[in-house]
Amino acid sequence: MINDSSMRIVRALRDWIAGAPAGARLPSTRSLVTSYEASPVTVQKALRTLTAQGLIESRPGVGTFVRAVRTARPSDFGWQTAALGTSHSRLTSAAATMRPTPGGGIALHGGYPDKELLPDRLVRAALLRAARSESALTRSPVSGNPDLQSWFASELAADTPLGVNSVLASDVIVLPGSQSGLSSIFRALVSVGQPLLIESPTYWGAILAAEQAGVRLIPVPSGPYGPEPEDVARAFEETGARAFYAQPNYANPTGAQWSQDTATQILDVVKTYGAFLIEDDWAHDFGITTNSTPVAAQDDGGHVVYVRSLTKSISPALRVAAIIARGPARERITADRAAASMYVSGVLQAASLDVVTQPGWQTHLRGLRQQLQSRRNLLVDSISQYASAAEVTTIPTGGLNLWIRLPDATHLPELITECESNNVFIAPGNGWFPAEPTGPHIRLNYSGPNPGAYPEAAQVIGRALNQGTNSVR
Amino acid sequence: MINDSSMRIVRALRDWIAGAPAGARLPSTRSLVTSYEASPVTVQKALRTLTAQGLIESRPGVGTFVRAVRTARPSDFGWQTAALGTSHSRLTSAAATMRPTPGGGIALHGGYPDKELLPDRLVRAALLRAARSESALTRSPVSGNPDLQSWFASELAADTPLGVNSVLASDVIVLPGSQSGLSSIFRALVSVGQPLLIESPTYWGAILAAEQAGVRLIPVPSGPYGPEPEDVARAFEETGARAFYAQPNYANPTGAQWSQDTATQILDVVKTYGAFLIEDDWAHDFGITTNSTPVAAQDDGGHVVYVRSLTKSISPALRVAAIIARGPARERITADRAAASMYVSGVLQAASLDVVTQPGWQTHLRGLRQQLQSRRNLLVDSISQYASAAEVTTIPTGGLNLWIRLPDATHLPELITECESNNVFIAPGNGWFPAEPTGPHIRLNYSGPNPGAYPEAAQVIGRALNQGTNSVR
Repeated sequence: MINDSSMRIVRALRDWIAGAPAGARLPSTRSLVTSYEASPVTVQKALRTLTAQGLIESRPGVGTFVRAVRTARPSDFGWQTAALGTSHSRLTSAAATMRPTPGGGIALHGGYPDKELLPDRLVRAALLRAARSESALTRSPVSGNPDLQSWFASELAADTPLGVNSVLASDVIVLPGSQSGLSSIFRALVSVGQPLLIESPTYWGAILAAEQAGVRLIPVPSGPYGPEPEDVARAFEETGARAFYAQPNYANPTGAQWSQDTATQILDVVKTYGAFLIEDDWAHDFGITTNSTPVAAQDDGGHVVYVRSLTKSISPALRVAAIIARGPARERITADRAAASMYVSGVLQAASLDVVTQPGWQTHLRGLRQQLQSRRNLLVDSISQYASAAEVTTIPTGGLNLWIRLPDATHLPELITECESNNVFIAPGNGWFPAEPTGPHIRLNYSGPNPGAYPEAAQVIGRALNQGTNSVR
Repeated sequence: MINDSSMRIVRALRDWIAGAPAGARLPSTRSLVTSYEASPVTVQKALRTLTAQGLIESRPGVGTFVRAVRTARPSDFGWQTAALGTSHSRLTSAAATMRPTPGGGIALHGGYPDKELLPDRLVRAALLRAARSESALTRSPVSGNPDLQSWFASELAADTPLGVNSVLASDVIVLPGSQSGLSSIFRALVSVGQPLLIESPTYWGAILAAEQAGVRLIPVPSGPYGPEPEDVARAFEETGARAFYAQPNYANPTGAQWSQDTATQILDVVKTYGAFLIEDDWAHDFGITTNSTPVAAQDDGGHVVYVRSLTKSISPALRVAAIIARGPARERITADRAAASMYVSGVLQAASLDVVTQPGWQTHLRGLRQQLQSRRNLLVDSISQYASAAEVTTIPTGGLNLWIRLPDATHLPELITECESNNVFIAPGNGWFPAEPTGPHIRLNYSGPNPGAYPEAAQVIGRALNQGTNSVR
């Protein structure tokens, strides 16, 4: 996004300002246009940048001046400490997976697929059509674009067995990304201080959203095939919880997929306790050797509140997701959504619907499946060849991640730092545990750029692990 | 968004289904393409619609069938009542201002400017450029596009007087619309159950967001020139509140604008009580006879948390806004934003930045000013000519609304219904009061479609008022 010619002017003017007295008047925009052979827009942009940097200030109708207070006294925000009190949650401002990667690094820590895995041409064509359509200048209805609601409903209806009432378009609430949906669901279905069952380990963003909503997390251990139905029943029994957050297909981070049996049994448990299953189908489009079959498709009693996102499969810039819920739960969630964000950009909704209804979308998904399979296989092979101390807990049948158990003696922060100093970026597993981690884990994402570097990355991880073990001994 | 040729097929197939036995197999997509002379995409769309309506179901690889359970047993969601408990807030799912207008009606109830007032060509051109840029396929940083952060900072810096440290680009947090920002600010700065001062009347969306955040609202009366500084001081003193939500420029609904004196005094009060002023500058671009000068520009102690939205001035489809805050408050808000939504669509950010940095943007704003002035004047004149019982409380110097006090005897719901039966849509004032309304009010928005109909609308309101008064007597 950096406009080079405006940066050139910024640099030149910064030198000029350094030598000018406070309050000196800058040359007029017109004369800067001439001196720097740049357009007025570029000059204005440079001036805005310098203003934002606190070096100059403009007085409308008078001119632009070198700021009088250049070595500004530092502001004292100490009073805010009294006003804000102690922090009531462990919200952190940037999780490991959202960190940008320095140029040239091998990024295994991220959560978003690389451009190479996105339907580039479909996205651009859809945005071009949306730019020309009515949707560019009108407000979307609060619950979403009706055709997009209909599409989300039909996707779930396609998996619904005979004899089960399928969901309707009016059960769908369109969201600006699934993260804001999780917050709303937790607030709407669980009161502040009340218990919420949650798989452990599980998606850190869900842990964050639950803490923001002020609910009390009750971890339920989840293995390579999901949690044991008896564990879920016991947790409901002991805590009186009325909701369980889970990712039955390609769970993040473990890659676990519930079997049909597990799904049926857990749905029965949920019904027995008069509770909700909050099903986060984040990786619906990322099946590799199986498909994602939502538990929600088996339920017509309003027990499953279903979340599906298109952000990662279409483009991180087209953030669109949906909640599907029935009965009073849907009303509660809709009311919370209205308070939280009113409505979703119609341009993003129109463009997303356009992408998923093109014939090219199915072709894209088939190609994606193959790419994910080769990437996953290459990463698994590389780890077992070069970092055999690292145990891949499950070969995932879908999703974007490997969840890896490291030897007990591993010092995780040292390992991460050691890998980073060799330009390999990995995510420490601790963030995925709602309570204490059960041991040192890392998560490796195989949807980032440059999969050809997986063997090299595995070598770095392997060497770092060996060093760590040696130093402990 | 309705595709006519797909609706044609939906209607025809619905007739066919009505006459078919449950479980009957529909003709293949290919033969439907031939029969209806439509594209495969159109046929697929019709089938999706029928699926979402619960009339058919597809079994992948087998075919599409008339649903066995067509007169489905109604689902019983009664168990949810026990799981959800009583509703802990008075969140309503759709506020009066968000209602769509039936065709042909005169819409004075809405909150979003008509297309005629939007920079149509700039928006479309910006979206086209964004569709072709990197931003279409990449994830934005958590706090926003750096150039857009810089622009928001420079806008505020332009109003900052000499000797006050202006804000930096890094103080800016980009949002997907200001509504979600209000929720985050209230959660981050005020704990659950703690007091928050708020102007009364004020923006209903802020009342909604505050209730969602679980804070306790303390109304401060606000007149045509804003609240009395002494009232604000007394409210801080009596309640121990540490934050005050206000709209110092062109307040919604009253149109009030604080004088320079009021702003300085209230900022002093806020500093005295070690508190935050949450300044919602929603109508920054909608000055008519004055400009919006943010209170935030006078503060460098981190006391003002500033919210500015571009949604209403650029396009309701490009939802972009920003919070500007300093010190630990910014950290708290950033952490809440990460939990609430992660990041904002880069396409919307790139397109918004593109619009506001075009030379045509300033031209657009000048034209908008004139249009708002004629619309406001016409509506004021129409009301005083045809509905003299309705008192325009202030001639607003900016913003989009007239706030009207009606005679004490007015029965508001009857008046609204009577006007609607004559195709005139107005918003009852009750929603803008955080406590009981101080009398019957309505809000009339003069940025909707068809301003030529204002005299006619005023006549309808005038007649309804006279009828109401007569029937009471």
